[in-house]
Amino acid sequence: MTTTVSTKNGIDVDQLVETIDAIEKNPSLGAFTFRARSTWQDGTYNTGEIGSFHHAGAEDESRERPFALDGDEPPVLLGSNKGPNAVELLLQGLAFCYAVGFVANAAAKGIEIESMEYEIEGDFDVRPFLGLEGTRPGFSAIRATGRVASSNATREQLQELCQYVQETSPVRDSLANEVPVITSLEVL
Amino acid sequence: MTTTVSTKNGIDVDQLVETIDAIEKNPSLGAFTFRARSTWQDGTYNTGEIGSFHHAGAEDESRERPFALDGDEPPVLLGSNKGPNAVELLLQGLAFCYAVGFVANAAAKGIEIESMEYEIEGDFDVRPFLGLEGTRPGFSAIRATGRVASSNATREQLQELCQYVQETSPVRDSLANEVPVITSLEVL
Repeated sequence: MTTTVSTKNGIDVDQLVETIDAIEKNPSLGAFTFRARSTWQDGTYNTGEIGSFHHAGAEDESRERPFALDGDEPPVLLGSNKGPNAVELLLQGLAFCYAVGFVANAAAKGIEIESMEYEIEGDFDVRPFLGLEGTRPGFSAIRATGRVASSNATREQLQELCQYVQETSPVRDSLANEVPVITSLEVL
Repeated sequence: MTTTVSTKNGIDVDQLVETIDAIEKNPSLGAFTFRARSTWQDGTYNTGEIGSFHHAGAEDESRERPFALDGDEPPVLLGSNKGPNAVELLLQGLAFCYAVGFVANAAAKGIEIESMEYEIEGDFDVRPFLGLEGTRPGFSAIRATGRVASSNATREQLQELCQYVQETSPVRDSLANEVPVITSLEVL
């Protein structure tokens, strides 16, 4: 017996279809709880860790160790550039989310991606953070531009896919629509 | 002449006060445009870059080279764990944002921070991303827990500060409230 693995754009399409079938039959398998933590180091510099997550009633232990991240501000915002800042990570997350969505959905449709880039920009006013009157504390607008090359898809197919990816993007939805954020503090 | 640099929690409080004064006099100095870009590598793996940003009519060139990030999915989501995934970066951004806000505002108030950690969790259902009916594509809820120790602040002062930081946090506002996200695609 020969097993053919159907891979497109580096995506295992058989696994994708099996995953969709399994979650359709057992919707609770769709639920994930992801996590991140930070530890303050000095000034605006914090280190971050992204490790295991909760899925299907158990911790996913596929990561041998947590991913380590650095967060800091540039000198104009009182830091020393030991890492990107917090709002920049949101933009990076949007870029990664769009790219995964585009490539995976293209694979499911038999569209071959040759190259794919995203550039994301976000406009931000630091005044509310500094206690000054101004606009909202967060981004006032985010702009995303994708650049894609495909060997077998029409422009119309790729534009339709771009629209579909926007509508189903976890990061876009988390930014474009309201997410309840509950915050508590333990004083040690 | 002796210059005393007033530093608290690693934050240069003199620079902080000067920054606030300068932006209060010239509000356009509060405006920033941050950026991130991604390049697709294979499957769910993308590399990211966070480099210069726009501020005060010019590019900030304080970073010698862009920060490099990896984005990927775990095996259960068709990837190979070459980096955290897109939604995890949002949680990491919230942790870093809260930490910077807490430490900087504490410094401005003369509150000494001895230690500060954040743990962030986000609940997420992958069904809409996979084209299945379900909840929204993004986070349904995010929970943040801070743990802080201070040598000279009361519990009440620290809880008040936690509330203030929530209200002025750029990342919290970007998640808790709607941000316009404009997306376009160039077909090469």
